Amino acid sequence: MYTELFGQMKKQLGQLDAWFVAAEALATAKKFDANVLLELRLSPDQFPLVRQIQMACDTAKLGASRVTGKDAPAQPDTEKTFAELRARIDGVIAYLGTFTASDFEGASTRTVTQPRWEGKVMSAPDYLIEHVVPNFYFHLAHTYAILRHNGVSIGKRDYLGTLSQRLP
Amino acid sequence: MYTELFGQMKKQLGQLDAWFVAAEALATAKKFDANVLLELRLSPDQFPLVRQIQMACDTAKLGASRVTGKDAPAQPDTEKTFAELRARIDGVIAYLGTFTASDFEGASTRTVTQPRWEGKVMSAPDYLIEHVVPNFYFHLAHTYAILRHNGVSIGKRDYLGTLSQRLP
Repeated sequence: MYTELFGQMKKQLGQLDAWFVAAEALATAKKFDANVLLELRLSPDQFPLVRQIQMACDTAKLGASRVTGKDAPAQPDTEKTFAELRARIDGVIAYLGTFTASDFEGASTRTVTQPRWEGKVMSAPDYLIEHVVPNFYFHLAHTYAILRHNGVSIGKRDYLGTLSQRLP
Repeated sequence: MYTELFGQMKKQLGQLDAWFVAAEALATAKKFDANVLLELRLSPDQFPLVRQIQMACDTAKLGASRVTGKDAPAQPDTEKTFAELRARIDGVIAYLGTFTASDFEGASTRTVTQPRWEGKVMSAPDYLIEHVVPNFYFHLAHTYAILRHNGVSIGKRDYLGTLSQRLP
């Protein structure tokens, strides 16, 4: 399910555009600069919206990179506008779009590490299930929650996107 | 990865106890009834804390039930206290603990439906990846966000729990 889990992250990142459209519509209606939203937080010691989005992007991008050993494009955290965030998200979506099932073939025996883990490693499957998936959705849901808390008109359908439903 | 994904949901639900302990500590320090937190929302048209927790529980429980065809225990949404929510969460953790890899053997060819889907179905793998996982973490992260927004002292480690790290 490597391909499916990262494919789903790619799909979820694609949903952000509709959230941004709704955010910009609120800003236009209320006559404020939409980019003001990027610095809002739910708690003073939580990350602001812009950082939640950057972290969702990095969690998916670096997750796919570490699980497969494929280099990821560098993306410094310099975004200050929705336009710049759209470009970053598009870059991650394009990167995730390069993966096929064969990229994940060696994943079950690969180990993963990060500088902050002080030399420790995780198996790639554990890293995906225990770290990447929970963190990705954490930052995605916080992005959604910050927007909703500030009056942006989005709903669960904008979060989930179109489901692969069919008649039986 | 069926076993791993649901095992991770079980682990994440186990983290809620530490969040509740922190919520109760704040209530004691500030001299308010901890159960007041259960009715708080991030937005007037989002669900309150108690419902976010119930939905995280149901998403995991009904997800495992629908993907495997194993009956799930009924749990009416009647909780009004953290004590009652702990009992509900414990019930879901116990239910998820009954699953083994063999329960998921037929999952890849199973189809799933819900009353609100108007007769449509999803394959069980699509349902898990597109619906269960994103919804579970949505409600879990909203639970976390509501608590953080109201001053409860929890951090990312309380969200993720202990990772399966080892020395290389």
